[in-house]
Amino acid sequence: MSFDFNEIIGFGAAVLTTIAFLPQVFKTWKTKDASSLSLPMLILFLIGILLWLIYGIVKHSPSMIFANAITVVSTLLLLYFKIKYTK
Amino acid sequence: MSFDFNEIIGFGAAVLTTIAFLPQVFKTWKTKDASSLSLPMLILFLIGILLWLIYGIVKHSPSMIFANAITVVSTLLLLYFKIKYTK
Repeated sequence: MSFDFNEIIGFGAAVLTTIAFLPQVFKTWKTKDASSLSLPMLILFLIGILLWLIYGIVKHSPSMIFANAITVVSTLLLLYFKIKYTK
Repeated sequence: MSFDFNEIIGFGAAVLTTIAFLPQVFKTWKTKDASSLSLPMLILFLIGILLWLIYGIVKHSPSMIFANAITVVSTLLLLYFKIKYTK
């Protein structure tokens, strides 16, 4: 598999948007405060990211598959924290 | 321009991940509380989404261009709220 310039941009995007959720997951886990996170946002985002993952698969885009697979996990964690800490 | 099935999945993904940020923007604006939003998350996410927008342009993906252009605006708004309400 050869990587062209487009895939370098895609991988940069993938790395950044994937890494982006890590400080949020860490902050929410550390502070046990998810009060200002929106529950509808997390649910809509999770379904959307699952569709992006499918789109990445059908588009044969390694960047999209890589990014969205990890983001699904991060979003599931945030959703879990939101439900857990809201009780 | 004809839309194939892949683009329908992509557009579904685009609509969901774009719509997802609206309840977050509305909640943050309404409550004036961005305390549990992570600032590094917003900054990394914004740069990442800008790269996804470029990737969408070079990949000729209408879904990615549509979604990421709007998400750039939503993320800029959240970043503005975060900075404004943290003072």
